[in-house]
Parts: sequence; C-alpha cells; structure tokens
Amino acid sequence: MQRAALELIADRGYDQTTVAEIAVAAGLTERTFFRYFADKREVLFASQDRFIALVVDALIAAPPDLAPLEAVVTAFGASTTWFDERRALAQARQGVIDAHPDLQERELAKIAKLSTAMTQALSDRGVSEPQAALAAAAGVAAFRFGFAQWLADADGHDLESHVLSGVDELRKVIAI
Amino acid sequence: MQRAALELIADRGYDQTTVAEIAVAAGLTERTFFRYFADKREVLFASQDRFIALVVDALIAAPPDLAPLEAVVTAFGASTTWFDERRALAQARQGVIDAHPDLQERELAKIAKLSTAMTQALSDRGVSEPQAALAAAAGVAAFRFGFAQWLADADGHDLESHVLSGVDELRKVIAI
Repeated sequence: MQRAALELIADRGYDQTTVAEIAVAAGLTERTFFRYFADKREVLFASQDRFIALVVDALIAAPPDLAPLEAVVTAFGASTTWFDERRALAQARQGVIDAHPDLQERELAKIAKLSTAMTQALSDRGVSEPQAALAAAAGVAAFRFGFAQWLADADGHDLESHVLSGVDELRKVIAI
Repeated sequence: MQRAALELIADRGYDQTTVAEIAVAAGLTERTFFRYFADKREVLFASQDRFIALVVDALIAAPPDLAPLEAVVTAFGASTTWFDERRALAQARQGVIDAHPDLQERELAKIAKLSTAMTQALSDRGVSEPQAALAAAAGVAAFRFGFAQWLADADGHDLESHVLSGVDELRKVIAI
C-alpha cells in the first residue's frame, strides 16, 4: 500500500496525487483508504507507526541489566535490517517529506511520539524519570543522525553501522 | 500582544477565541494582526521566534574556545532571565499548547528550527558536521528537559539551575 502510494507520488508529485488515485493503485476504494488512514499524509507514516511499535517492544524485551542508553541503542538495532532491505523506498519517502512542510510537521510529531514511548518503556524498566527522558531523547537524536547519514551514504553501508557511529559521536560531544 | 492574547485564551479557551477578539484586546485590527502573524497559532509562538534569534546570536558570540556542548549551554543561559521574569505567562502558554495537538505540532516545528539554527551556528564556529548536529540535538534535549522541570517546579528555582541539572543528567546517562 505504502509502496504503491510512494511510486505514484514519486511519479506525479505529492500535491498532484489524490487519495482516490492512491487507493486505485493499491487496489482499494477511497472509502477503504480512510478506514486505514486518517488523511493523505498518514499513508507515508504507516510504516513509521510500525517502526515505533517494533523498537518499543524491543526496548521492553532488552536485557534488564543494560544501561538506559545501551537499551535504547539495542532496541533501534531491531529495526535496522528492515530498513536496509528498503533503502531506495526510504530515500524516495524522505525526499517527498523534505519537500513538504506539512509532512515535515507530521514527521516531527511521530518522532516526538517515539521519544515519549521510549521514555515510558524505560520508566517501566525501572529507570528514574530524568534518566529515562534524556536517554530516550539522546538515543533518538543519535538514531536520526545515523539514519540521515545512511540515507545519504553513496557507499551503501548498513544502517546499524551509521547508528552506532551516531552514538559514538554523541558520546564524544558530551564528553568534551 | 502575546500577553493580551494569552489572557484572553486562558479566560475563554483557545478554540473559542477568534483572531478578531485577540486583535481588539491588543488594540489592533484583524488586518494588522495578519501583518504580524501568519495564522492564529503564530501569536503563541512569536516569543519563541525571538528566543531562537536570541540564543543563536549568543551561540555565535560565545567564547571561541568553548567545546560545542558548552557553547550551546552558554547560549541558552542568555535566555533564562527573560523566562524567569515571565514564569506565570510561560506556564499559561504551555497549558494551552499541551491541550491542542495542532499547537504541539507547531511547537515541535519551532524546536526543530532551533536545533537546525544551532547546528548551523556551530558549523560557522568551525565545529565538524556530526559534532555540530549532535551537540545541538543533545543541548536542545537538555534544555527542553530543564524547561519542563522549571515550569512544574513548585519551589520556583530559576530556569538556569534546571537547565544545568538537565545537562548533568544527560552527561550521566551518556557516560554509563
């Protein structure tokens, strides 16, 4: 569904693509579309909701003795293979988002949702409130940095190596 | 202007307050309102644009030998007295934002703008790209955490002490 939508949008442009056209391309009616998605923007973020659920589940399941930031990094690791198998799609999607301020706003809202969900999962692991909020925020910042590097990487190194290098850079910048 | 708008909104509720009413309360016409603000939401974020300009200027002017994160923290320090003098107003404003998803989205967009502007200012100071992006992201996360603690602090400790304790917590969570 998202793939059909993205191919159409990449072909015609986001503003020129209607919900009816996206639905047809995916073999659905417009009415069915709105059963799955609240609005046109959401078709680009359905996989992000699944990504959030995936990393939050991985954070809950991470070994209990991991330090907060280590647990967050481990949780992101559960998602990287999925992205590596869809790199071209992720690049096309990001290109559409970066070109539309309203899509950027929606993306920021999803990232905030991810950060809040990770803070809650860390609290449930027994991490104190300031540490939970800051480990989630710092981990998400390192992941976003690594993700952007991965999207732009002409040599095609995998996402996990970029995320780990983001965490390394974060540790360096905090230590000095 | 923002004070007049906030008092009206606190009194009637955000959804029940029209742009025309806000303009009248501030001694302006509706037409003049739209010369200053793109939409109704923006009246709540005018001071945030000034805040961004203030801390980015302070970051550019910070002593050149400061490490990236130290420079970011110093820059936020230029804004804390201004907030301490407007604590009740800041609390009322945050209450309105937290109750409205569309205002929360606008706030996240402003925070992203702040982070991008700080990354650029750090680059202009000669900080390498990964370090600039991560020092800005980490500093903004620590500031946001400190700001939330300051808003909720019944004992009324000043914003700077809360921001510095946010940075301490960040250092701790990264170190382990």
